Amino acid sequence: MQTSVFEASTKMTQLLQRYEYFLKEHVFPIEMDVIYGSFKTHLPKLNELRNIAKKEGLFAPHLSVSEGGLGLDLFEFAFISELLGKSPLGHYIFNCQAPDIGNMELMHQFASEELKNKYIKPLQEGQIRSCFAMTEPQHAGSNPVHLSTTAVKEGDYYIINGHKWFTSSADGAAFTIVMAVTDPENENPYQRASMILVPLDNPGYQLVRNIPIMGDAGEDYISHGEVKFTNCKVPVSNLIGKEGAGFALAQERLGPGRIHHCMRWIGICERAMEMMCRRAIERELDPGRPLASQQTIQNWIAESYAEIKASRLMVLDTAFKIQHQGAKAAKEDISTIKFYVSQVLMNVIDRAIQVHGALGITDDTMLSFWYRHERGARIYDGPDEVHKSVLARKIIKSYQV
Amino acid sequence: MQTSVFEASTKMTQLLQRYEYFLKEHVFPIEMDVIYGSFKTHLPKLNELRNIAKKEGLFAPHLSVSEGGLGLDLFEFAFISELLGKSPLGHYIFNCQAPDIGNMELMHQFASEELKNKYIKPLQEGQIRSCFAMTEPQHAGSNPVHLSTTAVKEGDYYIINGHKWFTSSADGAAFTIVMAVTDPENENPYQRASMILVPLDNPGYQLVRNIPIMGDAGEDYISHGEVKFTNCKVPVSNLIGKEGAGFALAQERLGPGRIHHCMRWIGICERAMEMMCRRAIERELDPGRPLASQQTIQNWIAESYAEIKASRLMVLDTAFKIQHQGAKAAKEDISTIKFYVSQVLMNVIDRAIQVHGALGITDDTMLSFWYRHERGARIYDGPDEVHKSVLARKIIKSYQV
Amino acid sequence: MQTSVFEASTKMTQLLQRYEYFLKEHVFPIEMDVIYGSFKTHLPKLNELRNIAKKEGLFAPHLSVSEGGLGLDLFEFAFISELLGKSPLGHYIFNCQAPDIGNMELMHQFASEELKNKYIKPLQEGQIRSCFAMTEPQHAGSNPVHLSTTAVKEGDYYIINGHKWFTSSADGAAFTIVMAVTDPENENPYQRASMILVPLDNPGYQLVRNIPIMGDAGEDYISHGEVKFTNCKVPVSNLIGKEGAGFALAQERLGPGRIHHCMRWIGICERAMEMMCRRAIERELDPGRPLASQQTIQNWIAESYAEIKASRLMVLDTAFKIQHQGAKAAKEDISTIKFYVSQVLMNVIDRAIQVHGALGITDDTMLSFWYRHERGARIYDGPDEVHKSVLARKIIKSYQV
Amino acid sequence: MQTSVFEASTKMTQLLQRYEYFLKEHVFPIEMDVIYGSFKTHLPKLNELRNIAKKEGLFAPHLSVSEGGLGLDLFEFAFISELLGKSPLGHYIFNCQAPDIGNMELMHQFASEELKNKYIKPLQEGQIRSCFAMTEPQHAGSNPVHLSTTAVKEGDYYIINGHKWFTSSADGAAFTIVMAVTDPENENPYQRASMILVPLDNPGYQLVRNIPIMGDAGEDYISHGEVKFTNCKVPVSNLIGKEGAGFALAQERLGPGRIHHCMRWIGICERAMEMMCRRAIERELDPGRPLASQQTIQNWIAESYAEIKASRLMVLDTAFKIQHQGAKAAKEDISTIKFYVSQVLMNVIDRAIQVHGALGITDDTMLSFWYRHERGARIYDGPDEVHKSVLARKIIKSYQV
Repeated sequence: MQTSVFEASTKMTQLLQRYEYFLKEHVFPIEMDVIYGSFKTHLPKLNELRNIAKKEGLFAPHLSVSEGGLGLDLFEFAFISELLGKSPLGHYIFNCQAPDIGNMELMHQFASEELKNKYIKPLQEGQIRSCFAMTEPQHAGSNPVHLSTTAVKEGDYYIINGHKWFTSSADGAAFTIVMAVTDPENENPYQRASMILVPLDNPGYQLVRNIPIMGDAGEDYISHGEVKFTNCKVPVSNLIGKEGAGFALAQERLGPGRIHHCMRWIGICERAMEMMCRRAIERELDPGRPLASQQTIQNWIAESYAEIKASRLMVLDTAFKIQHQGAKAAKEDISTIKFYVSQVLMNVIDRAIQVHGALGITDDTMLSFWYRHERGARIYDGPDEVHKSVLARKIIKSYQV
Repeated sequence: MQTSVFEASTKMTQLLQRYEYFLKEHVFPIEMDVIYGSFKTHLPKLNELRNIAKKEGLFAPHLSVSEGGLGLDLFEFAFISELLGKSPLGHYIFNCQAPDIGNMELMHQFASEELKNKYIKPLQEGQIRSCFAMTEPQHAGSNPVHLSTTAVKEGDYYIINGHKWFTSSADGAAFTIVMAVTDPENENPYQRASMILVPLDNPGYQLVRNIPIMGDAGEDYISHGEVKFTNCKVPVSNLIGKEGAGFALAQERLGPGRIHHCMRWIGICERAMEMMCRRAIERELDPGRPLASQQTIQNWIAESYAEIKASRLMVLDTAFKIQHQGAKAAKEDISTIKFYVSQVLMNVIDRAIQVHGALGITDDTMLSFWYRHERGARIYDGPDEVHKSVLARKIIKSYQV
Repeated sequence: MQTSVFEASTKMTQLLQRYEYFLKEHVFPIEMDVIYGSFKTHLPKLNELRNIAKKEGLFAPHLSVSEGGLGLDLFEFAFISELLGKSPLGHYIFNCQAPDIGNMELMHQFASEELKNKYIKPLQEGQIRSCFAMTEPQHAGSNPVHLSTTAVKEGDYYIINGHKWFTSSADGAAFTIVMAVTDPENENPYQRASMILVPLDNPGYQLVRNIPIMGDAGEDYISHGEVKFTNCKVPVSNLIGKEGAGFALAQERLGPGRIHHCMRWIGICERAMEMMCRRAIERELDPGRPLASQQTIQNWIAESYAEIKASRLMVLDTAFKIQHQGAKAAKEDISTIKFYVSQVLMNVIDRAIQVHGALGITDDTMLSFWYRHERGARIYDGPDEVHKSVLARKIIKSYQV
Repeated sequence: MQTSVFEASTKMTQLLQRYEYFLKEHVFPIEMDVIYGSFKTHLPKLNELRNIAKKEGLFAPHLSVSEGGLGLDLFEFAFISELLGKSPLGHYIFNCQAPDIGNMELMHQFASEELKNKYIKPLQEGQIRSCFAMTEPQHAGSNPVHLSTTAVKEGDYYIINGHKWFTSSADGAAFTIVMAVTDPENENPYQRASMILVPLDNPGYQLVRNIPIMGDAGEDYISHGEVKFTNCKVPVSNLIGKEGAGFALAQERLGPGRIHHCMRWIGICERAMEMMCRRAIERELDPGRPLASQQTIQNWIAESYAEIKASRLMVLDTAFKIQHQGAKAAKEDISTIKFYVSQVLMNVIDRAIQVHGALGITDDTMLSFWYRHERGARIYDGPDEVHKSVLARKIIKSYQV
């Protein structure tokens, strides 16, 4: 019996059970070792799991059947993303992790057949990884119009120069898509930049460092690169979409990306919630008096439940809207979920830590990882403050007519 | 084109437009006079509007067609309730106001044919009003098990004695349903009380006063009575449902009641939001620099938008669940919307007042009425704190298996 | 033994005990009747109490001994203001209520001897009341530079035209000080306006109405007037200070005024806190299980305690600074206490109401009055949002050097 | 001219300037390398700075002059602690860091002359470090009554068995003071445990690991040990104070310890505030439009200023009270500052990070360290929730008389 308008279909419910089984069987048991140990060392084990996922027909669920995926639409994939979010390894193992999923979607729509054959195919099969170089240390990410990285056309080549950071998963990636100014004089600042694919064995490219984030530089997929392009020469055919279309493509990329992220955050919340409840039951203040008997703890559980539920309904509603009307029509909704859900994520993780007491701040649970590595959720893809202003101005405008 | 899973159907959309037109045409223009003036004085005008509503086929939308209503289900009525909530007179004019709507629903299900004929019919037609006497001044409303009011059976009569307050709309009502202890020794405290209908011309009944609430005792429908029952004698046939079923019936009554209330609160939020935006546009700090240009104001607008949207999706989702699975299955959802939406209501009204500045605290707008008369939303039908604990204990239990 | 740097001196402690005794003996027993009844009707009783206060040497504590007061400095008076704040009648009975106290201070410093003799003397003795007309309905109070009220000099007279509101206590006042533009062309907008005393029997003055605030228009001292000046002619000798000094004087007036207000708010908080604790002890969820046993209630009590303590130390520290260095040096501190304490006031009143349950929203306690009539604290004397920006810009500037 | 009752004396002001100069000259330039690098590797450099501190007469300011310190009282030292808190190395370099300062104070009062000579002297001179083993992984720290660690007397020895964690700075320490149950049958649970000094070269002692906290196990002083005592044999003369006095001593130790911690937290807040302001000035959204122009940022700065100020006044007031009336009389105040200031610390660090954008989550500033390593402030020394309940129950009791 259907309990919510947003309940997953029977087909999806069965599929979700298979993913859930996989997580419990294969992923949860190893996630602590991988996340708090060396990612690279565990690559063989992770590849093994990817192969099992392929065999079980669970790999790359976001891709069409012809591309080797499950042919799920955005709304359906949202449920998968929620579930996989429960482990920091979830999306990776099924090859639907950011930034690769965004690059796949983007190139699927806008890249030339040549680029698709050369880069998307191995990316979809999990043979290579990719990254996306947009943010620059010298410029506020909240106003992406300002970019110093340039791509100057010389004959059949672009010569790229620039300095980027927070190029997630650059370490070990085979290529990046870089956002660079191609038309600095264009009157419309939103038409100055383009997206260009750069293979990372290019001598003009340098991974300066994996940026230490919250005490942890990470490596491979779990890392954020600072990178430099110095007279980096790539053929003009590496352009994605049209010249000057950089920002337009970035917007296209962000819409579904926010759904993926928000559902992943909700998955984290749900797991943190579960940990919080279990801890509240097990930990006793006095024999027979568990933390769960404390009203403050009960308040946190109730408030987390409400906030997670609100988040989930809003994100699913937005996914539904994007799917039926396109990302542009859902712009306000996308801004709304960005700032609402990121704050809920902070709230729930923080409460779960507090319920765990001293254990909560150790690396003996997953909470410490989330507390540190999800703090960025309120910053990346536009800080929450910017989304609030953007949304409010839209609403205000609607009353000015 | 459908933009949300929860979008109203075409039928409902058309219906809503008719109600909206009615509100703008007939209700908004008079609401300030009625609410800040004397309700009784305006009864002729209000009856006139009720008659127009009847003629236009908009009266009592929650009733079945055979009873003179529109035959809407709970989910459909939720949209109506949201819209009517935009005016404090909305529900009243269409005869779907609390506490009468709750009494109609309750008696429809559980009252004898005799009681139905005598009381429900004129109630449904708007000829009389009713009230509901449950809360007692000596006992914490958050634990309804404790009641001092008793109904002792003597022959074919109950002799009722007790002291109640917050008997909403008692002033001018034709009857009340009173919750009284009929079986004080029952081991199960939830089976001690019964619901009994008392006509208010009974000499054993006394309206002590309309309680001054936040500076305003009100009158007639807009009032909350303190009432006394002194050897109040009513026939046993005035019992609603079975003896001892009082709490069970109260639960039945509360489920849909919360949907009505929550959607009404959301309607208030939406109107306050509109007022806030319009004021932010019109009011200038300096010529050409409206309040709307201030980021703090923008934050409040964006946060209100998100909170209202979250509320709306959660309440609609809960209405859907009640309709398909019953109120019992939706118990957690009902607790969740109770405390979540009541807090959102406070937030939005408070922000709207602050945006209005000095005007916001005057009775020159509707905000002052809502600020005062909706403060109770966090208290009645179980204070938010109790709902949080109840919800949390349910959640915790689910992890203890 | 001294327990805090800020502990009152022995002299003050004894004095405070006398005021406290007076409040308990004479004021608390009648405050509900006066506040929820008719102020005017109770004037004889209130005057009787004023006479007792005079006899006991407690009247007008803020005045110098030669003026009939107690010769307390700002820091000492702060303790008195805190204590008197516990009743809405406290300051009034001892003739140190706003806006009169502000007018006394202002005129003491800046008015001519003639004005002093004619107006201050009877004001100090409690024979007349006064008011202060600054805020205009057409202009945002948060930017006081914009005023439409004008005072045009014609010979030895000013001809005043304008529309003011929130002229507190205008009803029954003998004179007002009005802020009016005297030099509209002055390059410095802060030097355009002047303060002029207007006796209220002037035919050019009209009290349009006592503005209904939160359901209550009030009367006499407890009221906020909407007033009009129509070719209102007063002698130029009624000018307070210099022409064009209006804003400078307003600033002077506001500094100590904020201390008075903030300490009064703290007094309200302390009384609401006491009510909250007593109610938590008395009200039982089940026999033997009082509200006070609930952790949520405990949290509110602890948080209120901390916030009140923080407020108190900050306001006393600011009073100390104003006294030793002047209001200008304490400008940041004054902005800080304005927005911090007004928010604490809201928090504590709101929590006290919630602890009282249904009783909390009735007029059966003082809480309803404070909830409604102190909501303006976040708005008047500059909305909190403006104070935050002003403070932040000052802080930022200190890092720009 | 004195600007606050709490302003430091002239003597202290001059002293503070010398410490501030030292921090800027010697500590700030190296703190990032030490904190984000290897503490052990930097020990020679740190010892060099300690020697300079000694030469300049700034070492161990909390000690009496005869012990080689500056003879400051608790109130005076509070100002020093605030200032040194601005760097994570501050207290360490001047040898007044927790847990050593607590052990010095405790042993100074309660240890035998023999223990003092053997352990305090080298500790005071900075030749050795110490630690404090109280918290146990199996028991909620919020109820310290439950301890599994036992010390059984056998002849002239205690045989200690138990498992502790969060034994801060155990790595490299020369001795620990361990809390162990010596009288398990005592009716009063607060008299069951004793404090015993254990030299860490004892074969019955084992440092299991430095617990990874928020991604960082740290080392030496910057670490938190998990330790085991297995038939660990120490002479009974290693008892501190009396047998059974463990909890009483722990309370003694905590009072001044909270002042030290809270002032250190305030120092962190002040530094984070400075970083936030500087970043807001430097970072531009558009050329000429710095972050500091954004009202949301201004709100954060203003709110941080108010909260820091409130914290500072409350902690200084509490220090004053402890000094003049003892820790017991200040128990409520100590609970209040514990939960109030720890929350302010979270708020200010979080806002500073958000203002820094992506940079804020990297290890390129000190903010990342504080975000991670001060999260424990709401947990250790009793979680905030416990302090709130304790405080509230005390307040409630005061109304029950």
